[in-house]
Amino acid sequence: MSTDSIIYLDNCSTTKILPEVVDEINRTNEKNWANPSSAHRFGFYAEQEIDKARKSIANIINTKSKDVCFTSGGTEANNLAILGLCRLCHKNKKKIITTKTEHKSILRCYEYAKGKLDFQICYIDVYKNGLINLDHLINELDNDTLLVSCTHVNNETGIVQSISEIGSIVKSKNTQNSKTMLHVDAVQSFGKFELDCSKMNIDFMSMSAHKIHGPKGVGALYIGNNLKIEPLIFGGGQERNIRSGTENVAGIIGFATAASIAHKNIKKNFEYVSQLRRQAINLLKETIPNIHIISEDNSSPYILNFLISGLKGGSEIIVNILSEHKIYVSAGSACSSHDKSKGHVLRGMGYGESAVNGSIRLGFSVENTITDIKKMVTLIHTNLS
Amino acid sequence: MSTDSIIYLDNCSTTKILPEVVDEINRTNEKNWANPSSAHRFGFYAEQEIDKARKSIANIINTKSKDVCFTSGGTEANNLAILGLCRLCHKNKKKIITTKTEHKSILRCYEYAKGKLDFQICYIDVYKNGLINLDHLINELDNDTLLVSCTHVNNETGIVQSISEIGSIVKSKNTQNSKTMLHVDAVQSFGKFELDCSKMNIDFMSMSAHKIHGPKGVGALYIGNNLKIEPLIFGGGQERNIRSGTENVAGIIGFATAASIAHKNIKKNFEYVSQLRRQAINLLKETIPNIHIISEDNSSPYILNFLISGLKGGSEIIVNILSEHKIYVSAGSACSSHDKSKGHVLRGMGYGESAVNGSIRLGFSVENTITDIKKMVTLIHTNLS
Repeated sequence: MSTDSIIYLDNCSTTKILPEVVDEINRTNEKNWANPSSAHRFGFYAEQEIDKARKSIANIINTKSKDVCFTSGGTEANNLAILGLCRLCHKNKKKIITTKTEHKSILRCYEYAKGKLDFQICYIDVYKNGLINLDHLINELDNDTLLVSCTHVNNETGIVQSISEIGSIVKSKNTQNSKTMLHVDAVQSFGKFELDCSKMNIDFMSMSAHKIHGPKGVGALYIGNNLKIEPLIFGGGQERNIRSGTENVAGIIGFATAASIAHKNIKKNFEYVSQLRRQAINLLKETIPNIHIISEDNSSPYILNFLISGLKGGSEIIVNILSEHKIYVSAGSACSSHDKSKGHVLRGMGYGESAVNGSIRLGFSVENTITDIKKMVTLIHTNLS
Repeated sequence: MSTDSIIYLDNCSTTKILPEVVDEINRTNEKNWANPSSAHRFGFYAEQEIDKARKSIANIINTKSKDVCFTSGGTEANNLAILGLCRLCHKNKKKIITTKTEHKSILRCYEYAKGKLDFQICYIDVYKNGLINLDHLINELDNDTLLVSCTHVNNETGIVQSISEIGSIVKSKNTQNSKTMLHVDAVQSFGKFELDCSKMNIDFMSMSAHKIHGPKGVGALYIGNNLKIEPLIFGGGQERNIRSGTENVAGIIGFATAASIAHKNIKKNFEYVSQLRRQAINLLKETIPNIHIISEDNSSPYILNFLISGLKGGSEIIVNILSEHKIYVSAGSACSSHDKSKGHVLRGMGYGESAVNGSIRLGFSVENTITDIKKMVTLIHTNLS
């Protein structure tokens, strides 16, 4: 299909790859396509490309190259951090602290850690605005806690947790003999928010390329402080023995290119989408009766989740109507279309069934304009009347 | 670097992506870049692309779409089959039969299964020509055997195992109450040899895109007979809950395109490289004294491994000299440059240290010509004299 005429407001699900990224991928596939593990010079050139990409990702999060482990995406990065740590340490500390509003790729790992590795999973409360109850966190942190795990920007609601504060709390409880680690899912914030893993006391951080106009099938895990984890995938010993398999050279170059472009424009883009979101909220409130904005104030400007009360047939009706007009938005998390347990994030925040069913999520990029939003709002309004 | 003037004889490590594959990847990134899990029509179009790709891979191995699970590559496919099965079944049958000449991504999984999941790993003998001793296999197969695992075409030596025969042996030992499964690493044979999983009695089969002029970072695991395995990576439930994570749409399309092209030309290509290999062997024997061809007769025509006895400094010297002239060949397996335990395949076949050190591997593609080979042979000869 031609994508010229579409209005794509689902940029938390995935984004369109940038032309500059496509060019770099094509250049790599044309010029530097060797296996980086090959001992000849052509292999060495491919290895150099990866080193350069790694350094560039490391610079963005203010760390060293050796702390960046490339993966096949954000889901693998989350799994690698959590299962990798739990499997390695599963005879020592047996408690993990997290929330019920995490991404499925995190929640499923914790279900596994509980069911198969005998971990105790403590789900701390979030307030109705989605923010973590830090007092509850402080109370639950003890010497038995192996890991605290939370998402920086929630992919459904856009809620931004204060990672610095959480990092300080976790660090303050650490002693010389007992350390609790902090894992952060930064898939929706990397390239959009300034992230400094060391300053924020982060031990593991997950990143993804395709959420920032890079290719699908590539991501990275930050692993700080020379921490050890068990690999998910064993083999030729690539990625410092943490993640085996021939490196996705072109994908990694594409990821680094997208990340560099995103980081270079981080402030400008942030301001643009902030204004867009504000305008969208105003327009929605003016036009649609019974509208409720989820996390009007605590959200990433890249995400806008709203509920229309009393929507017959739920928000999927709206998604379908808009879809027929080539306007693409999401009902709940895009990652959940394979399972029926939708809405765990809103439910975790204390919302009921009708809210969960009526929720619509917009994901912005700098490609979106207020004209796009107006078209969408008009269409929703027409179909409600 | 410009790749116009290079002579690339390392096509078992990786291959150059085909222009038709690049075109399909670029088309997908331009037109059909949605997240297949998205509920809107744009997501559905991306899902359709994946369905089409899956069907095309399934057709090539004569199976149904549902049996094909996309992964991030061959290494992940091997890990998913082996660890996925061992973790799910680790309280029942406790024995696995394999050889010492498998790829590291298989051997490392078995080390793990032994060390962490209490499996007994039985390494059956291979003859000096690399072929599996089938009598030893028959003797070792018992009711406690969960899995037999072997590589179709060895990536270092090119030796081709008779999978049909092995499949029949495994099947003949199965009873209604006790089934042993067969895993085949087909990374070096998929797209080059005709494969029919059902006819060959294969339960799991690993494939990779970048060995057949497709993109790096994508592969697949054939899972037959509705067999259950534990996922390596948990999350949104993609790939029928076996492999979560946003699908690498463009990579998958690229894989299917490369596979279709390879399969369409399978006979023609096979004949071409067979002739090239024969010519290369003749030329090497005529020109280089003290040369020994590994598996002259039992090898895939795509691979040629030879030893030069008494080579001072080992084959790496030759690899480096050729590399300076932009002729790229491999000393041992490319996947092993991260670890020092090189040469496990030749050692597994009973060769000694000097053979291991003197081994050079060529990997052919239809892009290679006899002129390339002549240049290489001349250069080796000059540097030996």
